[in-house]
This record gives sequence, structure tokens and C-alpha cells, in this order.
Amino acid sequence: MVELPDKQAAFMEWYLAVVEEAHLTDKRYPVKGANVWTPYGLKARLQLDAVLIREIEATGSEAAEFPALIPATEFSKEKEHIKGFDAQVYWVTKGGVADLDVPLVLRPTSETAIYPVFALWVRSHRDLPLNIYQIVNTFRYETKTTRPFLRVREIHFFEEHTCQADEAAATERVRSNRAAFAKMARAFALPYLAIRRPDWDKFPGAFYSIALDIPIGGARTLQIGSIHHYRENFSRPYGIRYETVDGEQRYAHQTTFGLSERLLGAIVAVHGDAKGVVFPSAIAPFQVVVIPIPASDAGDAPLAVSTDVADRLRRRGLRVRLDAGEERPGSKYYRWELAGVPLRLEVGAREAKQRSVTTADRLGRKGTVPLDRLETEVERLLAEYDDALRARAQAEFSAAFSVARSLEELPGSTTVRLIAWCGNEECGHRIETAIDGSLLGTPEDPLPFLTEPIGGCIACGEKSTARWAVAARPL
Amino acid sequence: MVELPDKQAAFMEWYLAVVEEAHLTDKRYPVKGANVWTPYGLKARLQLDAVLIREIEATGSEAAEFPALIPATEFSKEKEHIKGFDAQVYWVTKGGVADLDVPLVLRPTSETAIYPVFALWVRSHRDLPLNIYQIVNTFRYETKTTRPFLRVREIHFFEEHTCQADEAAATERVRSNRAAFAKMARAFALPYLAIRRPDWDKFPGAFYSIALDIPIGGARTLQIGSIHHYRENFSRPYGIRYETVDGEQRYAHQTTFGLSERLLGAIVAVHGDAKGVVFPSAIAPFQVVVIPIPASDAGDAPLAVSTDVADRLRRRGLRVRLDAGEERPGSKYYRWELAGVPLRLEVGAREAKQRSVTTADRLGRKGTVPLDRLETEVERLLAEYDDALRARAQAEFSAAFSVARSLEELPGSTTVRLIAWCGNEECGHRIETAIDGSLLGTPEDPLPFLTEPIGGCIACGEKSTARWAVAARPL
Repeated sequence: MVELPDKQAAFMEWYLAVVEEAHLTDKRYPVKGANVWTPYGLKARLQLDAVLIREIEATGSEAAEFPALIPATEFSKEKEHIKGFDAQVYWVTKGGVADLDVPLVLRPTSETAIYPVFALWVRSHRDLPLNIYQIVNTFRYETKTTRPFLRVREIHFFEEHTCQADEAAATERVRSNRAAFAKMARAFALPYLAIRRPDWDKFPGAFYSIALDIPIGGARTLQIGSIHHYRENFSRPYGIRYETVDGEQRYAHQTTFGLSERLLGAIVAVHGDAKGVVFPSAIAPFQVVVIPIPASDAGDAPLAVSTDVADRLRRRGLRVRLDAGEERPGSKYYRWELAGVPLRLEVGAREAKQRSVTTADRLGRKGTVPLDRLETEVERLLAEYDDALRARAQAEFSAAFSVARSLEELPGSTTVRLIAWCGNEECGHRIETAIDGSLLGTPEDPLPFLTEPIGGCIACGEKSTARWAVAARPL
Repeated sequence: MVELPDKQAAFMEWYLAVVEEAHLTDKRYPVKGANVWTPYGLKARLQLDAVLIREIEATGSEAAEFPALIPATEFSKEKEHIKGFDAQVYWVTKGGVADLDVPLVLRPTSETAIYPVFALWVRSHRDLPLNIYQIVNTFRYETKTTRPFLRVREIHFFEEHTCQADEAAATERVRSNRAAFAKMARAFALPYLAIRRPDWDKFPGAFYSIALDIPIGGARTLQIGSIHHYRENFSRPYGIRYETVDGEQRYAHQTTFGLSERLLGAIVAVHGDAKGVVFPSAIAPFQVVVIPIPASDAGDAPLAVSTDVADRLRRRGLRVRLDAGEERPGSKYYRWELAGVPLRLEVGAREAKQRSVTTADRLGRKGTVPLDRLETEVERLLAEYDDALRARAQAEFSAAFSVARSLEELPGSTTVRLIAWCGNEECGHRIETAIDGSLLGTPEDPLPFLTEPIGGCIACGEKSTARWAVAARPL
């Protein structure tokens, strides 16, 4: 057994130990920031992807897949975009023994791979809206310290790219993406803020960017996704035009929605505890582990009942692991708690005799369930577990913010700060300097836990244009 | 409507037209051999992948995912392997604006990415067998003419890599892979030959290679997969060792099993006809299309019944498309036949009144099904359709081979040739020259349609060592 570092005192050490000890990743691959998806980590990722797929397809998006290699000529068509990614792209310059005529970029994101093709697909107003998503790996030559799931060089990535008839339709797509993300986040039990980034921090080439941020302790935040409105910024250079009902040629308005394996890191970071990972049931590789407890007077009964219990729950559609190995039960409990399994069922001599199972969820709540109500009771326990996980995360989320009324309060902040900001860039940079971090921007929705009246901009004192903004030290 | 080229007279033109007209791929992406997976093509691929996943997991293999970038230092550890791939790898030489210290290869296959990690995972006999598969894209700088699915530069790839205790266990894994592929091929209705490649044509670094080949017209064949026994050829340079029960250190024996998007191309090539794609029901994006036939006296009834029919079949777990668009029915029939949908259900005024649907499968067989037996009858029709597809493919497969008794019969062959070969390399090359193609090797199993007695090697006449072999012109 391994003693994990203290989550509060040493968050990153705790995080790194947890993802390794729970076998979610293997970071010993000989390229920095390129980690191995272990069987257990990949199982969690596939469940996570399934939630993304379910929710995005419910909004009328279809999956496609575009190539990973982008010709330099296409990559450089949108000037802001290329400027934003220039320092962090991998270049493929040789094929076999020969230099390539046109060097290829390994996609860091797929605007420049997809839009030349969208220009062929979009002809008429009847082709709109075009809502396409792909789940692929992207590549960024990351120069900062890499961390499994949180900052890596090969990134498991979800990206939706859409073409809409006009700005209003694109704004509506942004709204639809936000609603879809709210459902995803509910499945992951992750409270978050949707924050409109200041102009100087928007996605390269975007009209505006809405980031999805979560607090992860102290003044630290983690951006777990983003939704962008591009207006015609890409459709013009890539020639994505359509004929209106009236026979006019117009450029499409575009949006994108990006998520990544960071979500898995966020789930570990937010829900995990001193014993290890705590998975919401929606993405747990195994939702239930069944452990027979051998006893000298019980014979085969614990194993027979456990096998039957596992089979019944699998038939119900649950992901179940029967752990009938030779290890001691206590050691199994330890291992499956570390792995974050939501619900443990124990079957010993007493349970076999009384036709029941003993239950223990990953939040430490215990009970007994009679076998004749097994399926419905297990489903109820999982639902209650998810609710409890959500409530705990929500309480921690609300406590993660505090209001600052002056720049002097920002240095050394131990929470994410809510501040009044006039919208001026110069003031923004003064706030960033004071907190030694970023002005994340202005929340898209009112914060339910923020009841105080707003004051003047904490940098310049201006009252008329002041709005609540979030200042933090993003990871 | 588009007239497709004749499949017999102009196979490749027919194939290229079909995959494009059926919207399985878009090859207008601005990198040669890097095609777009369209929504329809991707749906088919995901179904195909699901079959591979189901069958390989049934044999105790687990999914993992290894990085796409391989350091040059790891890539060059096995000498034969690097020699075999040197001419066709993409090199990543720059990150951002700087040259990389160690250039990276974009994986052409993943032995050299996976085995440094296997060396960490395998310690003891208790860690064996280690059966790991991944489904990822691989990259090859292909210099031959590229064709969607058949020969591309970014390849959707399935690869299993295993570590076994000894040569016999590895041989057993090869057998298990062959059995798994037989089940996959049954789902795809694809007859094939498992052929042991001659030594000069085995996978770079392999002890031996078994290829899975299909005839695709004339003397042409297509390799749709391969299974390799590596013995200790990779485990030695990569240091994959384990401690036996007796405390000895031994190198693992390894195997691999590779499949790719070629399977999708093969399914199109084998089953397709003058009307377009013909999908086996296991991988059809839509197994059933329901088409309401409006009639002036029928009101909403055809649409209402169609909607109900589609809902009922979806609840049964079938993939169903309701096509209630404004196009004429005939035009819809044409489009869904081109797309290869196994079963069409039509609901007009008569059907709505008689509480039935008219059925037409993609092989042209028609009938009527009463609504009160809808689900079971549709399932029966799909099973019969798959059987008929399998029978047709099997008949064409048997007719695709003929025996040749002398080198003189090989030039201009219009079938794949079965010949006697002594096993000698020089004779092999004479055979290859005569057919202007390859000696694919010796079939692993007896060919049921081959009843003639074997003669002497068709190159040298030697009888004692002669075995049946296959000569063809592989694509």
C-alpha cells in the first residue's frame, strides 16, 4: 500500500501519485508529455467519450474524421490563427528519405484541416446548419511542464465545428453547445463557470471565446473546455460560402466547441480524496465491484452468490467487476477504492445465508441489500452516490471563490477571486499582475453564491462599466 | 443519377466511383492519400470496429493506446524492422521553431512504440500472457497510387500485440487470432485465405507471417490482414523479459495481429454491384430504411405507420433510418441502394390499410410483412439476407481460383493461380516473374474447392517437397 500525498497541502504531488497508483496512465513512455493510455485509463476515457457523443449527437451533430496532417499552405491562411499556434506545432518535414515539397503540420486543432473541405460541402442554404464533430488526437509542442491528462503533447480531443447561416444562428449554436456541456458536466458531477475571455486571451482567430473553467484549489483554475464564435473570420479566408434563398452569396458564420482529456484529469482532481480516485458512475470503468469473502464454514456459497450477483447486474446493463482473486478482502477494498469504483458489494457467509449483500459506496456509506431487490437497490444506491458526489463538489465549488475589493487583496490569494472590472485592457493587465495570474473574464451567468453588490473597477474605480470578473492562477 | 462503370470490365474505376457516390469518403483533402471520413463512411467504420472489438475482447485482449510519435532511437532498435519501414515513414523534425534533438517517427505500426513499455509491464510469469490491442491511425509515406481505404497514407488501424511465455504459447495465440478473424470475416460475409508468406515477403522482423488474402477479380488479390509470430526477435532488443516460476529470466515470445480500413474497402469491393455498395447487416450504418409512399387518398397514414415502424425497430436495437423527405420514392430507392442499406421497407396507402409493409432487400428479393410480426420478420429477413450475401461471395470466391500446371500458363492469368511449389526461393522468384506478381505463399488450411492431386514444383519439377501455393497479382 502506498501513502498518497496530502491533497490540500500538496495538490499536484497528490494528483500525480493518484493517476499513477490507480493505473490511469503510464508516463514512462520515452517522449515527454506523450503518455500511455493504460487499459484502465482507456476504459474511463471511452465512457467519458460516450457521454460527449450522446450529448452532442442529441443536438444534431454528426461525427466525421479529418486527416491529422495539414499542409503548411492551408495552415497559414488565417493570420491570427497561425500566429497563435506557430510556437507549438510539430512539423513533418520528411517522407521516407526525401524532404517534403510542402511541409506538413501535425494538427494542433483542426480548423485548417476541416475548413478547406467545408468549403466544398457548403454550397446552398440547404446545406446549413452543418454541425460536425470529431474525436481525435491532436499534437502540441508544449514547452511548459507536462502533467498526465492536464497538459500533454498528444491530446485526446473532442472538437465540434459548425457552419451557420448568420451571426444570430451561430450565437444560437453557442447557446446549444453550452446547454450540451451542462448535461455532460452533470454526468461528470463537475460544477464549472462559463466565462467569456477578454479579447487579448481569446482563441486565435475567434470573434469571442467562452471558456469552461473549474477551481482546483487555492487561486488555481483549470480550463476544461471552450466554445468559440468565429463570425466570418475563417469562412472568408477558406471560402466557405453559400447561396441564400434569394440567390445571394454569403459567408457562413462558424462556431467551435472543444473538450479534451483534461476532463478526465478534472474529474480526478475535483472528486479524488485521500484514498484515491472517486469516479462518478457515468464514467467509472466498473460501476460495481463484487467481492466474495471466503469463510471456512461457508464453502462455495460466497463465490456462487457473488457470481450470480455480478451476472444479474451485468444483464441490467451495469459495468461490473467480480474480484474473486486470492488476495485478502482488505487489500481488495484498498485497491478498488484507489481505483475509484463507486460501489462495492461484499458477500460473506452471513450474506450468503441471509440472501443479501453488504454495500459500501466510495463516499464511505454502508448498508445491506436483499438479493430479491438487488437490481433496483443497486441502481438507487448509484443514483444517491452521484447526487452526494454532486452535492459535495458543489459545496467545494462555492467555497472556492471569494470577492476582492482592491488590487492589494489579490497577491497571495488562496481562493479564486471575484472582482469588479471596467472592461478596460490596461486595468485587466494590472489585475493579472496583482494576482500573478490571469483575468479569466466575465461569467456568462449570474453566480448563485454571489450576493454582494458590485463596486467600481478594482483597478481604476470606474463604476458605470464595472462587471463581475474572475481572476485566478490558471494551471 | 450517376451511371457506375462496369465492375467486371473496369473494377478500379467502378470502385472509385462507388466509394465516392455513396459518400463513404471524400478524397478532395489537399494531402494525397489522406482522405476525409465522411459521416456515412465513419458510421460504417465504427460498426466495423465494433465487430473487431467484440471478437478480440472475447479472446481476452484488452484495449490500450500508445503514443503516435516514436523517438528515432527506439524506432531503430530492431534492424530488420527499421530496414523494412525506412522508406515509408514520416519524420517529425521540428517542434515550434526549433529542430528536435531526437527526431520523431509518426508511427507506421506500433511495435517500437509499445515494446519499450511492455518491457516495463512484463516482469514475472504472472504478467503473461499480455494481450493488448489498440485502434489508432498509422501513417505511411506511400509512393504507389493511393486508393480510398485500400492504400492510404493515414491508415485507420487495428493492431494486437501480445507477449507469451514461450514459442508454443505464441503459436497458440496465432491460432486464437485466426479463430477470431474467422468470426469477424463471417460478420463481414468475406471468404478469405490464410496464407503463410514466403520468407522473403514476411513482415520486417517476424519469424513468420500469415496473411489474410481475398481475390478481387482477375489475378488480383488484396491483403486484408496479417498475423505474425515474432519469437524473440523484438523482445531481445527491447528487453521484454520475465522471471519463470523457477526464478529464471526468459525473453517473451511475441505475436501481432493487424487489420485496417482495407476491410471496409474489401467489403465494398467484394459485395458491391452495378447499383453501388452492398453492406452486410453487421456493419451497415443503417440496416433498415423506412420509406413512406405518399398517396392522395391516404392522408398521414403512410408517414404515421412508417414512424411507428422505425420506432419499433429501433427499440429492438436495429439501426434504422426513416426517410420522410420530399424526394420521389424512386429517387430514394436509388440513393439507399447506392448506399448499400440491406433492407428497405415501404409503406403506402395499401400497406397502411392492410397493416403491413412491403420489403425489398439489397439483393433484390421482395415480400410483405404484417405489422404484428414486424420485429421478428425483419430480423429473419436480415439473417436470410446475410446468408444469401455469404453464399454469393463464397461462390465467387471458389470461382476466383484455378490451377496452373506450368510456368507458361501464368502470364496473363485471369484468375488467382494455385500452383505446386517446392519451397525454394529461386523457384519462387521464377513464379513471381511468370505471373508478373507475387507468390503469396502456402495456404494454412486445405482449400475445399481444390480436389486435384498435386504435381511437381511448376518451376523445377521437384515432387518430394512440393506444396500447393498461391500466385497472384496483389493490389
